Amino acid sequence: MSRGDQPIAVFDAGLGGLTVVRALRRILPQENLVYLGDTAHLSGGNNSPEIIERATLQGGAWLARLNPKLLVIACTSASVHGLAALQAAAPCPVIGVIEPGAEAAALASGPLGVIGSWATIASGAYPEAIHRRNPAALVHSLACPLLASFAEEGWLDDPITDAVCRRYLNQIPFEAHTILLTSTHYPILLPSLARIRPGANWLDCAELTAKAVERLLRGGLGWATASARGGLRILLSDPSPRFLEMGERFLGAPLQSVEGVAI
Amino acid sequence: MSRGDQPIAVFDAGLGGLTVVRALRRILPQENLVYLGDTAHLSGGNNSPEIIERATLQGGAWLARLNPKLLVIACTSASVHGLAALQAAAPCPVIGVIEPGAEAAALASGPLGVIGSWATIASGAYPEAIHRRNPAALVHSLACPLLASFAEEGWLDDPITDAVCRRYLNQIPFEAHTILLTSTHYPILLPSLARIRPGANWLDCAELTAKAVERLLRGGLGWATASARGGLRILLSDPSPRFLEMGERFLGAPLQSVEGVAI
Repeated sequence: MSRGDQPIAVFDAGLGGLTVVRALRRILPQENLVYLGDTAHLSGGNNSPEIIERATLQGGAWLARLNPKLLVIACTSASVHGLAALQAAAPCPVIGVIEPGAEAAALASGPLGVIGSWATIASGAYPEAIHRRNPAALVHSLACPLLASFAEEGWLDDPITDAVCRRYLNQIPFEAHTILLTSTHYPILLPSLARIRPGANWLDCAELTAKAVERLLRGGLGWATASARGGLRILLSDPSPRFLEMGERFLGAPLQSVEGVAI
Repeated sequence: MSRGDQPIAVFDAGLGGLTVVRALRRILPQENLVYLGDTAHLSGGNNSPEIIERATLQGGAWLARLNPKLLVIACTSASVHGLAALQAAAPCPVIGVIEPGAEAAALASGPLGVIGSWATIASGAYPEAIHRRNPAALVHSLACPLLASFAEEGWLDDPITDAVCRRYLNQIPFEAHTILLTSTHYPILLPSLARIRPGANWLDCAELTAKAVERLLRGGLGWATASARGGLRILLSDPSPRFLEMGERFLGAPLQSVEGVAI
């Protein structure tokens, strides 16, 4: 098997990362994907850096055994706190969601809004990555912990969800025309967010990460050679019925044959 | 040290159990309390039974080393799925939050509402425990996953929180005059809930569990003999700043000197 035919492995602490899988399947339909959601261990956006780094290393080590050509950390907290450690340990290239998002944000004109989980915002990782590229960027960061809960509950196209989005977005100055969604949970809330700020320029980290993967394949990792649609394996460390229901919302398609794994 | 002077140990997967600690401190102010919140491992109400049982056994084993006179599982999911296993393994009596809540609910007249996390409601544990005592009880159970998120975010006394409470409570027939709050997160939402259903009879599992502890002490476990106010140790497997902020809301008091522990 040539390297191009090896799978792309995607790690997430939970299920939001399935929005990255969704974008990958749209942009790179021929690729074989393996998704590992460590639903048994992490509550995600509230944990401390050491806990997140350890879980990311464990999940990455598990996926590395499948001999992927690329490891994608499709989880913002894990990208902030686990990317460097996993890059040092993994036998293949590893990318996270921070750099693709920051790269697009740094190109935007005018003040920026950056919204995410408590841990992501508290880390300061996005302003730092944006300022490395554009030291003059004016960044308004805001933690929006309830947004991930609403995405998980699936109250989409809903006045209460709109009210929650409004409460948060009103804390970002209106001059911030470009808003970066740093959590992989947020893409499914985009209709609500866009109703509150019509005309804003939304940067979706799931979409941007999938495009970064495409550039890496083109840049040398190589494409899958099969002409048929690539496969998708979904592995969860806790495949509870509730997680399966949530997962479908993030993937935007039925979850077929989920495998439970012990990490 | 007499048995009465040994501490009461309280285990929770997260921080909601601090509402039980709060009730214990009010009802039994002279007792020494040790609280262990396993914030590093569990997201709580969405996990599957095996994962919850394992985490409960690990947390209980950790607390048992402190030689408590009683172990309290202050977490509904852990009580549903971990109580029997921990009772079999622990060197002291163990109680959970299900039986105290079900006992009070079974005494109520008319139809009952039971609200809780996805895992609690899916388990059927409350209807079962209520029907064991009152086979004729009519129980309307409803999973309300967002309520715990709102409690954690601390949007209390807030119109959006009221709207979320209304959305859920409207799914419970109005004839259900008595409503059991099964999650230890919910007591701090009681003002919102009561605004939606004024005059309802709210059964608060944190309060009911603390009263059950009092009965066990009176029934033979014995009281702390010190005349001064008892101490409170708070141990978290992940003491992130976000968790400390949440914890204060559930305890209703500043969290003093939290200790980080590895479980």
